[in-house]
Amino acid sequence: MRIEIICTGDEVLTGKIVNSNFSHISQRLEDVGLDVVWGTTVGDDRAQLLDAFQRAGGRADAVIVNGGLGPTIDDLSQEIAAKAAGLDLVLDEAWLARMEEFFARRQRVMPPNNRKQAMLPRGAEILDNPVGTACGFAMDIGRARFFFTPGVPRELRRMLEEQIIPRILSRIGSPATIKLKRYHCYGLGESHIDSLLEGVEALDPTGGVKLGFRAHYPQIEVKLTVRGADANDIAEKLAPVDLEIREKLGNFIISEDDQTLEGAVNAGLVAQGGRVSVVETFTSGQIAMRLAHLPGAEAVFRRALVARDRGQVFEALRLPPHLDIGEYSEAVAAEVASAAREHGGASHALAVLIDLDEGHDRMDLGGTIWVAVGREGDTVVRRARILGGREWIRLGAVELGLDCLRRYLQGLPVIERTDFERR
Amino acid sequence: MRIEIICTGDEVLTGKIVNSNFSHISQRLEDVGLDVVWGTTVGDDRAQLLDAFQRAGGRADAVIVNGGLGPTIDDLSQEIAAKAAGLDLVLDEAWLARMEEFFARRQRVMPPNNRKQAMLPRGAEILDNPVGTACGFAMDIGRARFFFTPGVPRELRRMLEEQIIPRILSRIGSPATIKLKRYHCYGLGESHIDSLLEGVEALDPTGGVKLGFRAHYPQIEVKLTVRGADANDIAEKLAPVDLEIREKLGNFIISEDDQTLEGAVNAGLVAQGGRVSVVETFTSGQIAMRLAHLPGAEAVFRRALVARDRGQVFEALRLPPHLDIGEYSEAVAAEVASAAREHGGASHALAVLIDLDEGHDRMDLGGTIWVAVGREGDTVVRRARILGGREWIRLGAVELGLDCLRRYLQGLPVIERTDFERR
Repeated sequence: MRIEIICTGDEVLTGKIVNSNFSHISQRLEDVGLDVVWGTTVGDDRAQLLDAFQRAGGRADAVIVNGGLGPTIDDLSQEIAAKAAGLDLVLDEAWLARMEEFFARRQRVMPPNNRKQAMLPRGAEILDNPVGTACGFAMDIGRARFFFTPGVPRELRRMLEEQIIPRILSRIGSPATIKLKRYHCYGLGESHIDSLLEGVEALDPTGGVKLGFRAHYPQIEVKLTVRGADANDIAEKLAPVDLEIREKLGNFIISEDDQTLEGAVNAGLVAQGGRVSVVETFTSGQIAMRLAHLPGAEAVFRRALVARDRGQVFEALRLPPHLDIGEYSEAVAAEVASAAREHGGASHALAVLIDLDEGHDRMDLGGTIWVAVGREGDTVVRRARILGGREWIRLGAVELGLDCLRRYLQGLPVIERTDFERR
Repeated sequence: MRIEIICTGDEVLTGKIVNSNFSHISQRLEDVGLDVVWGTTVGDDRAQLLDAFQRAGGRADAVIVNGGLGPTIDDLSQEIAAKAAGLDLVLDEAWLARMEEFFARRQRVMPPNNRKQAMLPRGAEILDNPVGTACGFAMDIGRARFFFTPGVPRELRRMLEEQIIPRILSRIGSPATIKLKRYHCYGLGESHIDSLLEGVEALDPTGGVKLGFRAHYPQIEVKLTVRGADANDIAEKLAPVDLEIREKLGNFIISEDDQTLEGAVNAGLVAQGGRVSVVETFTSGQIAMRLAHLPGAEAVFRRALVARDRGQVFEALRLPPHLDIGEYSEAVAAEVASAAREHGGASHALAVLIDLDEGHDRMDLGGTIWVAVGREGDTVVRRARILGGREWIRLGAVELGLDCLRRYLQGLPVIERTDFERR
């Protein structure tokens, strides 16, 4: 099946906005085993749009068009779609009613120009948009089935999942119920995970499970796309693969689906009625920033001390100066965590202290990271070496620190070597 | 002049990476008055590439191709370019020597497969790449001039500025020396800036200056692209426009060109031998994160206290409890800044304290922001109201706080109303 994507809009064509809708559509189609072979970007221009629709209609089987469904005069998708197929535009009364209801629920009157959004090429199939007023639709142009989608990412994403992917899959006779299961990992490299998970797809002998990866250092996302006849069928196919993934990746799975690492930490603290204080140095506030803004963090997050200079850490926490031996150590890290917990009136502390190697910021510049985590009378200190330059060390230390706290809260071993460490 | 962009590569086509090269190319061309009318994305596939090159060659005047110049077997741009033009590939000895030198300078031996990068279609014009081994080149395919560029953003950007834009401009008979001047603004909305700067382009009667905007809330970037015969000519054309922009935007210009707001703050502190301590609440570490990681911040940044709970702020800074009247105030903000300065042994303090309105996170949720900034005996407190939901308030408060410190350090009025505030 030959699938193309057409992205429309002057903002995209002129580069005012970076086109992340394209990559989202393409990734999600790949997740379910569908390949996009061609992408086209055109502006809000009648001749260009008509040209793009006709070219794609002449060679593709399915075309996803993004953008141009809004209420303003430069939104041209319905008009040009109708022209490309030789159809007229007709008012869809049902969608007009939906829009009026949408505005009424928000105590607003629908502006007259929104009426345009309910004008569709005659005979078009409606693609529901539960979160906006732009009406998606599907129709044939040339030999291809076209799917018209809104430019607002949230609306596009939902329509793609619920309306378009199932329709394309059913066109190729594939089971059309789909589930995307995601595992977020920290501590294992992509090729390591790849080799650990070799063959897991085959645990579902029907071929209904597809494995994929996406790396955002230092996290790796493991994605399973499961296709089946219905939710039960999917659950059955997923079960053995899910079990195997948990066994292979074990403690390195930091969160699942929409949850984040910091979300898992926050949830762990909330569950235990915990309160946390943080001390960070070279990570410069990035740990506080990940935790302190979370919904519910008002109750959980006590305080963070951010300092670049070791003397400041000692002074702020009133630590005995004799401990300062010119660099951090296991003993100092433990003292810092204890003091932070006491001063903040917290039950838990997380301290991430870094001694950066001397020298210029090069690819092989290293840093020694001391993470101290725990509650009163039970502080665990973990040391790690990371090479890769200042920014790389900083990114790695933020994740390592948060992950140590997650592990502590979940009763897992805090000290477990990662692929990113050097001796 | 009809310009097209062709982006190549499986990583882009499948959405593994978001295509920011496209928007960069398109923006830079727009900056100099050139419009891109069509974009195509294809994978590392011989038939698709040939099809894309031939189609574009049949209808465009200039085509910029991005990607596919690397040393591996899936890098196909030279091969398919030659095929599309009916030419053979020949080894460019000069580029081969350049590559060998490139590796030698890094004390490495060039791997044999890099030789492929010096194989170019016969007669192609070389586009220099001073920062990598991929050789850019230009040639005709069909009726269009093609410019082949590397996928690595840093290499692409330099080649676009230095090699490609001047060539395209000279093809249309336009002066080919270009300067991009940027002013980063905070506190004025885009339409306000637009109206303030109406007519500034005309201050250069030759039409050599083009004005543009780019918004990344809460900052607006004002861009001037100046074209001229040479550097002197450009300086002459820029001068009256630059003067007018400084007069109109005044204190709202926070930094210029590659400098950031936090960079301006850091530079101001360094210049005065200052040391800063920070207190932040709802901004959750985002202010510390912007300042504390900067090169040189070890010497300038004393400490940050991040706390979500007002009681924690009072306790950490040992403020008298009678000041706590259930919300922040001018007096409290000033006390917080003074205490932070003293405890951190700093010369300057920045406190950003926020009282969020009650209620759900809606578009009209508001917050009251207290910023206190200054040195001993000279603390300025500024109050602002921002509406727009939690994330919007947080973003706005981070920028407002940093900007108040910049203004203080630069001797500008700290209290000057912005367009983002409500009563």
